[in-house]
Amino acid sequence: MSNEHTFWFNEEHDYSGSSIGFRVTKKLHEEKTPFQTIAIYDTTDWGKLMTIDGCMMVSTRDNFFYHEMMSHPALYTHANPKNVVIIGGGDCGTLREVLRHKSVESAIQVEIDERVTRLAEQYFPELCESNHDPRAQLLFIDGIKWMAEAKPESLDVIIIDSTDPVGPAEGLFNAAFYATCLKALRPDGIIVQQSESPLAHLPLLTDIRNALTTAGFESLKTICFPQPCYPSGWWSGTMARKRGKLDAFREADVAAKPFATQYYNLDIHKAALAQPEFLKRAFGG
Amino acid sequence: MSNEHTFWFNEEHDYSGSSIGFRVTKKLHEEKTPFQTIAIYDTTDWGKLMTIDGCMMVSTRDNFFYHEMMSHPALYTHANPKNVVIIGGGDCGTLREVLRHKSVESAIQVEIDERVTRLAEQYFPELCESNHDPRAQLLFIDGIKWMAEAKPESLDVIIIDSTDPVGPAEGLFNAAFYATCLKALRPDGIIVQQSESPLAHLPLLTDIRNALTTAGFESLKTICFPQPCYPSGWWSGTMARKRGKLDAFREADVAAKPFATQYYNLDIHKAALAQPEFLKRAFGG
Repeated sequence: MSNEHTFWFNEEHDYSGSSIGFRVTKKLHEEKTPFQTIAIYDTTDWGKLMTIDGCMMVSTRDNFFYHEMMSHPALYTHANPKNVVIIGGGDCGTLREVLRHKSVESAIQVEIDERVTRLAEQYFPELCESNHDPRAQLLFIDGIKWMAEAKPESLDVIIIDSTDPVGPAEGLFNAAFYATCLKALRPDGIIVQQSESPLAHLPLLTDIRNALTTAGFESLKTICFPQPCYPSGWWSGTMARKRGKLDAFREADVAAKPFATQYYNLDIHKAALAQPEFLKRAFGG
Repeated sequence: MSNEHTFWFNEEHDYSGSSIGFRVTKKLHEEKTPFQTIAIYDTTDWGKLMTIDGCMMVSTRDNFFYHEMMSHPALYTHANPKNVVIIGGGDCGTLREVLRHKSVESAIQVEIDERVTRLAEQYFPELCESNHDPRAQLLFIDGIKWMAEAKPESLDVIIIDSTDPVGPAEGLFNAAFYATCLKALRPDGIIVQQSESPLAHLPLLTDIRNALTTAGFESLKTICFPQPCYPSGWWSGTMARKRGKLDAFREADVAAKPFATQYYNLDIHKAALAQPEFLKRAFGG
């Protein structure tokens, strides 16, 4: 409940003209890194909250939507994902979900700002519980440079788990970067890009899709899911496949998945493939 | 863009500890009715905004999610909906969607506060474009009283398009009211109740489902959809059927629907029936 010891962290989002926020009891930490300003808050109803440059990034209570939907649909679409790379993803929540898949032999997280991960280890330890899995490797370097130097046809799934297309993540949203991802993927490889709000950021989402096509990806599929702590409360990920389609996935394996989830399941995977009318029109069919 | 002529309407929601808002250029109107305080704002990105007692009710840009999902899934689940009643719904957006169905012979909107409708006619004329359809009847009386006196087995679909379960709408969320709805429905009749945020209001949603079961409805189905202007940005409607199931619907009719929508279509109807893992657990299976 609100009282004299609480205040509101309201993120007023210029691009969309909409705001979101959580009621906060305390700012636990704030620091300026070489890349951005990171803050940690304690909230009344949403657990811990991490913000970067004033934008809500992850909360204890609602991060499961994003992390599950950025990982499981792509990993269950690929026939046998062994080598996975996460660009960004410093809170380690996507890494944790990726490592739930037994087929995965290596998962490399390439986060430019080590402080994001160190603060996640301190304030979101549950997201970091797989950081010491022997299949995990955490690198704190520039993901654009890493991808440009990656061995051709060495990866099965690339997950671009980045901040918005402004600031340090800007270079992750264009055809030149996607072309390096395409080269690093095996022929049946899949990239997943967090692609903003389907309603509030539709022009950005369309730009991302066009850039992936320009880079040479053969098929595209944007999936939508709730995400209360991001602008409009509704978010998307866009999958693109080097060669082949993205509609079919390993349904029997999803139905028998050997780990618990909070949002994702067989019906939700099918549901996420449904395209609202206005998106069908925006994407041309 | 933000400038000295804009300000933020931030709705800080006590129950959920979360806030939402839109950037506003001007308050166009405010009045205190016998029931509540209604205000109208102009926004930079979301068109007009109506608030009731400080809560965002409807915006020009994003009302389509709610109005389409509160009407079409139920009307396409019923084999031949002829007689429809909307309790609340004073902005007339649900009425407009209901009247898109050719089978509907009468649609009665029972809104307690006539000023909601008069202000909608002025500021949201597109939502009111079917108010003069000869099949439409607009009553400005107490919906609880109307339903208690309704002719038994005279209705096919009842849509409870109400504000939150506090204030004038409180009496619409309990088994006693639902029992009057059950009596007024024909045996294959369906009620749809707006049932709050599946994540942020899960205890309220569970209460609604339990009350519908207590009232005697045979089957239940909660559908989820985005709604940026409501707390958490993710909302639900709960359908309940007097006798029979709610999983099957008139798929061929949806695929050939003779009217345009912005969100709803065949795939979205199927998708809305998918239950996230945490809801399956909360609902017991």
